[in-house]
Amino acid sequence: MSQLLKLLDIKYPIIQAGMAGGITTPGLVAATAEAGGLGTIGAGYMDAAALRNDIIETRDLTDRPFAVNLFAADLNASSSNVQEMQKFLNKYRKELGLQLGSYTVKAYDYLEEKVSVILEEKISIVSTAFGVLPAKIIGQLKSGKVVLIGMATSLDEALQLEEAGYDVIVAQGSEAGGHRGTFDVKKYPDGCNIGLHVLVEELLENTRLPIIAAGGIYSKKQADALMAMGASGVQIGTRFLLAREAGTNQAYREALLRARGEDTKLTKVFSGRPARAIRNRFIDEVDASRLETLPFPVQNQMTKDIRAAGKEKVNADFLSLWAGQGVGSLNKEETAEEIVRSFAEG
Amino acid sequence: MSQLLKLLDIKYPIIQAGMAGGITTPGLVAATAEAGGLGTIGAGYMDAAALRNDIIETRDLTDRPFAVNLFAADLNASSSNVQEMQKFLNKYRKELGLQLGSYTVKAYDYLEEKVSVILEEKISIVSTAFGVLPAKIIGQLKSGKVVLIGMATSLDEALQLEEAGYDVIVAQGSEAGGHRGTFDVKKYPDGCNIGLHVLVEELLENTRLPIIAAGGIYSKKQADALMAMGASGVQIGTRFLLAREAGTNQAYREALLRARGEDTKLTKVFSGRPARAIRNRFIDEVDASRLETLPFPVQNQMTKDIRAAGKEKVNADFLSLWAGQGVGSLNKEETAEEIVRSFAEG
Repeated sequence: MSQLLKLLDIKYPIIQAGMAGGITTPGLVAATAEAGGLGTIGAGYMDAAALRNDIIETRDLTDRPFAVNLFAADLNASSSNVQEMQKFLNKYRKELGLQLGSYTVKAYDYLEEKVSVILEEKISIVSTAFGVLPAKIIGQLKSGKVVLIGMATSLDEALQLEEAGYDVIVAQGSEAGGHRGTFDVKKYPDGCNIGLHVLVEELLENTRLPIIAAGGIYSKKQADALMAMGASGVQIGTRFLLAREAGTNQAYREALLRARGEDTKLTKVFSGRPARAIRNRFIDEVDASRLETLPFPVQNQMTKDIRAAGKEKVNADFLSLWAGQGVGSLNKEETAEEIVRSFAEG
Repeated sequence: MSQLLKLLDIKYPIIQAGMAGGITTPGLVAATAEAGGLGTIGAGYMDAAALRNDIIETRDLTDRPFAVNLFAADLNASSSNVQEMQKFLNKYRKELGLQLGSYTVKAYDYLEEKVSVILEEKISIVSTAFGVLPAKIIGQLKSGKVVLIGMATSLDEALQLEEAGYDVIVAQGSEAGGHRGTFDVKKYPDGCNIGLHVLVEELLENTRLPIIAAGGIYSKKQADALMAMGASGVQIGTRFLLAREAGTNQAYREALLRARGEDTKLTKVFSGRPARAIRNRFIDEVDASRLETLPFPVQNQMTKDIRAAGKEKVNADFLSLWAGQGVGSLNKEETAEEIVRSFAEG
């Protein structure tokens, strides 16, 4: 049994990515865990009460361990410099019958409160993106015997995670859907976008921790090739978006079934942070406006009501249709168990 | 022996990429061929006389077959809409002591003339990038029993090549250095940039031709993993830039030895076509100017004298430092034979 399987106490080295924003229902996390993979609650945007609720509901469905994913970045932000973008976005609010946006935008991250919940609920695995958790929080989690998985988009980031005491590294290739995990988005405004097979090889050559490969993986053949190179496991996002248990709404599911890899692009229009999504009207129009997006998470806060209305109205024009480059080969909905099994078995 | 090895009459499925612009000296092509790989003359920017000369010189050094790489795109262009960019570039011409740029720019591709040379000289393998060769030329080459290798950056492009009668597909992942092979740069202004392991899997599932994997490959472990997935061979670019026999100048070599993968970016500033290069002063300053680059090959023609001066003055500020994302792991110069052997042997 590999080091990773022992460390995470799972049967197969298949990790369901901790996608934020209502995707990772307790049903999805528990079904993945029951199938022998690692389910993950995507808690990046949750408050502490929502996280506690999801943990309790997941525990009702499974006795297997599962992970909680957090953003290791300062999400507390306030900005009044948003008038131009709000005026542009108000055009959509009028179309969607929403209240016009205000000129001061605030965001909170509840990170410390969520860490308290994680410790109280004795969660055994925490994964993070966007950076390294503060040393104090790493200390608290280590005292609680929590295994720490950190996401890296470059060798330099992987070395920072290793140095800080993380136990496992997720190598996020440029193929991945959703947010780039890049730590320093001032230095790399479009993210570090290194192809997965290059990043995995670099990390294997230069770090000592187990590496989980992530980005564009949808077939067992890809997973086996990356593990033959030396990766200890694979993390799957986009294919789990089409899991029957996922919270993915209907308009999003239809877009995923239709899209090809080359229909995805890196964009900052939804959140202010580079992320891979299927091109749609919102991306094209904000791009065409040539307006500068606000920094994460201010832009994210500003587009929240518009994305929520897109969800409610089942209108993919206004959704952040996060998807990895493997999306072109996805043509059906499946159960989480079917997904895990397809990677685990012959 | 695999279908690809038979078809190309080579010993190892290691292809030296047909990098244009003086890199692929007869010495490099012949040494690669002698070592059992496929050497390639990068003839994209050559005229017919230069190509004939390189073929004759290469034949003096080896009896093994080698390929000629052509651009399958219309490179004949003329533009008078270049004033703004020329004014900006003249700043560098003054700094470098060059004649100021004119306001009409012309480019020629000599494609038909080069095809005549290829047929007269009985070249057995032609590889192309940027599109599908015109049907008439494909017919001529087929009549001359020339094996055709086409580069694709998406499944759709691979299917076009297959349909047109090409024999082998190079899957160019987003990791690759130099120009993106993307056919329709109006539709995909930044290129199709699909990660290699995703693209290879998609092509294997949906085409019948042998697939050569290209982009960011520097180690045997990567090559073996891609071939375990089903690729028939690998194409190597950046590592051959550091081959002792390559025409790579000293400033470029030093930049390659220093750079990490995340120091490369996709840029149109040198040629008007998206291409991956190590960031330098020229890229940063043209980006900061926010001037629109002219379409390929007009922009290429306009920056030619500046790049040539950079070469002459051994000044990497003005060079197009094409490099793939694997560049971070390259730390020495080698012979072409050492490169081929490192992939071929245990």
